[in-house]
Amino acid sequence: MTKHFFDNRYGTGQSTLDGIIRLTDMLLAGKNVVVAGYGWCGRGVAMKARGMGSKVIVTEVDEVKALEAVMDGFQVMSMTKAAALGDLFITLTGDIHVIDKHHFKLMKSGVVICNSGHFDVEINVAALSKMAKSKREAKPLVDEYVLSNNKKIYLLAQGRLINLAGAEGHPASVMDMSFANQALCAEHIVGNYMKMDKQVYDVPARIDKNVALLKLKSMGIAIDKLTNEQKKYLSSWEIGT
Amino acid sequence: MTKHFFDNRYGTGQSTLDGIIRLTDMLLAGKNVVVAGYGWCGRGVAMKARGMGSKVIVTEVDEVKALEAVMDGFQVMSMTKAAALGDLFITLTGDIHVIDKHHFKLMKSGVVICNSGHFDVEINVAALSKMAKSKREAKPLVDEYVLSNNKKIYLLAQGRLINLAGAEGHPASVMDMSFANQALCAEHIVGNYMKMDKQVYDVPARIDKNVALLKLKSMGIAIDKLTNEQKKYLSSWEIGT
Amino acid sequence: MTKHFFDNRYGTGQSTLDGIIRLTDMLLAGKNVVVAGYGWCGRGVAMKARGMGSKVIVTEVDEVKALEAVMDGFQVMSMTKAAALGDLFITLTGDIHVIDKHHFKLMKSGVVICNSGHFDVEINVAALSKMAKSKREAKPLVDEYVLSNNKKIYLLAQGRLINLAGAEGHPASVMDMSFANQALCAEHIVGNYMKMDKQVYDVPARIDKNVALLKLKSMGIAIDKLTNEQKKYLSSWEIGT
Amino acid sequence: MTKHFFDNRYGTGQSTLDGIIRLTDMLLAGKNVVVAGYGWCGRGVAMKARGMGSKVIVTEVDEVKALEAVMDGFQVMSMTKAAALGDLFITLTGDIHVIDKHHFKLMKSGVVICNSGHFDVEINVAALSKMAKSKREAKPLVDEYVLSNNKKIYLLAQGRLINLAGAEGHPASVMDMSFANQALCAEHIVGNYMKMDKQVYDVPARIDKNVALLKLKSMGIAIDKLTNEQKKYLSSWEIGT
Repeated sequence: MTKHFFDNRYGTGQSTLDGIIRLTDMLLAGKNVVVAGYGWCGRGVAMKARGMGSKVIVTEVDEVKALEAVMDGFQVMSMTKAAALGDLFITLTGDIHVIDKHHFKLMKSGVVICNSGHFDVEINVAALSKMAKSKREAKPLVDEYVLSNNKKIYLLAQGRLINLAGAEGHPASVMDMSFANQALCAEHIVGNYMKMDKQVYDVPARIDKNVALLKLKSMGIAIDKLTNEQKKYLSSWEIGT
Repeated sequence: MTKHFFDNRYGTGQSTLDGIIRLTDMLLAGKNVVVAGYGWCGRGVAMKARGMGSKVIVTEVDEVKALEAVMDGFQVMSMTKAAALGDLFITLTGDIHVIDKHHFKLMKSGVVICNSGHFDVEINVAALSKMAKSKREAKPLVDEYVLSNNKKIYLLAQGRLINLAGAEGHPASVMDMSFANQALCAEHIVGNYMKMDKQVYDVPARIDKNVALLKLKSMGIAIDKLTNEQKKYLSSWEIGT
Repeated sequence: MTKHFFDNRYGTGQSTLDGIIRLTDMLLAGKNVVVAGYGWCGRGVAMKARGMGSKVIVTEVDEVKALEAVMDGFQVMSMTKAAALGDLFITLTGDIHVIDKHHFKLMKSGVVICNSGHFDVEINVAALSKMAKSKREAKPLVDEYVLSNNKKIYLLAQGRLINLAGAEGHPASVMDMSFANQALCAEHIVGNYMKMDKQVYDVPARIDKNVALLKLKSMGIAIDKLTNEQKKYLSSWEIGT
Repeated sequence: MTKHFFDNRYGTGQSTLDGIIRLTDMLLAGKNVVVAGYGWCGRGVAMKARGMGSKVIVTEVDEVKALEAVMDGFQVMSMTKAAALGDLFITLTGDIHVIDKHHFKLMKSGVVICNSGHFDVEINVAALSKMAKSKREAKPLVDEYVLSNNKKIYLLAQGRLINLAGAEGHPASVMDMSFANQALCAEHIVGNYMKMDKQVYDVPARIDKNVALLKLKSMGIAIDKLTNEQKKYLSSWEIGT
């Protein structure tokens, strides 16, 4: 949980936008920003982009996440519809060819496309290359593709992770939690490997709590503790209306 | 999930603030609003209150949720510290005596206290009554307690659910999802009870997806579907950087 | 200024949404809310509606305000385009027939229309009546107009001020500033009428400052004062890069 | 207006945070960010920082602006009080020594201080130098001052404009409006200088409208125009409630 919440949601949100701004010097306020994927990373980017004044459009294949994005106040539509509206596209789905050949055809000239998901497969760069009559490096890590109708599409970091390529990855103040998490997990494994099978385990909740507590302490934040009366109540559930 | 997300997060958020405004006619902008509990309901209320211009303080006993509230931009502190700052207190913890005798002592005169959690036990009303030298109904469902130092504390709906007492509960457009969910669950049970044990089951993901899809359709929103290429990719995980 | 800022921006924002929710019990999250006019009142409503999870569309006739709405992250378009998208329409322009006959024709069935501007002329109610094959009061202050194609349009408070009709007007905690302002202005006139011509005067900045200071004090908020060094700097402008 | 709104509010907001992130790689989510000054620039930075998940504290000397910040949901307090809480301080006041000797004394170790106002006088760098027992360049443009109690204070860009020093100034998509504005003003002066006195003139509203209209067009956004009926209404003000 501390990995997901803090590393992905908060870390990716800031570092993705940071990477885009560094490479393009684009003002986010007023822009149509299309965020593909509304998982932890996607919602982090969507929230931050809205915080910077962008009009955010979310695309999703999962119905529940799509509805959640709607209820969070985002425009939700298919990529086919979003393709014609977006000024900036960011993919964070973990899936392949989320922006594909038929989407490039629908885009406005001058759009910027990038990926902040897991791999470099989310944007179909091969299709874009094939469609383009020319390609040049407009700036380092900014490739300009000119399509047959002179429409220009700017691809950042060749479709690789924008927050690693364009910025400095996750800020240190987030990564400390990931590393603390990993360190405590390693410690846990060392202490418990005799009891463990060869399979993937979830991070024990105890470790997550510990990492969060250490982080809160480092921020000078003290929170409430359950009183005995409250613990008793939670375990009994006997009172109430 | 559709129950949690939409009923609690979005429904409770709006109806809680609605109930408070109806009973008190209080302007939320600029007020210190203390939200006890950062579960689905609590974060819904916290987000909405911020959206109305309040300065929101969150209290939590869970370290991970507390840290999440911090990273979402809320002030997080113990109730003891928050008690002296708040203008409005809303409890949504599911636990007992979250606002207790020693908290009342620290509050400013004129504060408003209410509960939007599960039962009427979150605020220690008995302790408040005992501390008060007088009590009167200032308005329907608004009880004014005068403490020995003439400090006034306003308790809404006797500490019962403010969104049911003060407003009209969840808006119909949220409850339709809950009811759809329950109807489809009932149908599921009818069709599968022979295979089911006497225990609590999670709502099948299929039903959640279905409810979300119906809701999206009713809003005229179409989303993407996985292509065959994407399905294959997701099930293989063989390509990548 | 204290009148504009606080009465209109903050007061109207909350009381308009409050009025709508009381009359319709509509969940704002996920809805397309069209706000006509981006003056003090309009932006207050737009911000608050976004804070409640709505997707907000702004219409404006003023280019600068329209651009400002874009840069604040709102969708901006003509009413003709917005008419087909909106679930809820709120007019705050101070002008006539902002929602007119040709807009009603484009709307979806089930939309809600209301006015929070100065008078009851912003919505062309006469045209709507003429177009409708039937009209009934669905609930108090909620009129259902059925058009020839069985499309239903719900008009709140007959197009009169929704925040006065549906809610309780401006919250007391905002109106106190307006009244303080008016009282201090009256005092100012009493003390200065000998020097004043028969014309409209702006509220003296001194009074605005005074009202704001009193309000801050009542909130327990202390702010910085200019030091002598700072006053001197501001009046000289001699140092700098 | 187009200069103020778009250059300062939106441009400064993004470029200031961009500059800070580039120099420090600090995660803004969860941080206490103190914004000194709530003018156009200050509120732009405050809004954007909140959008990135920061807990924002505003300091002001003007009562009306201070109250506005409160009503916008920000914590408002004196710099003396804020000094002890902040993780990051940004000055945008246009005044001298807004962060002064007695403020440095109250700060936590590890805080970051920078200026995004007009000159390099807002932070009393001379006083900080005098208080420090040592100073070193931790990174380019990041000076680490170690005070007598080993407390560390990080000053960015020697107190000069952070958005020019650390980032690339205003994004091109904002500056185009400023330049368009200046070009149209120059044209206006060429055409009208015979009628003009030697004094400072406001930019004619006509030019602002023109710049905004051109920008909206470039974004593909069309807005409503006043109908004849509406123009007549606005000039008459004879109808109404």
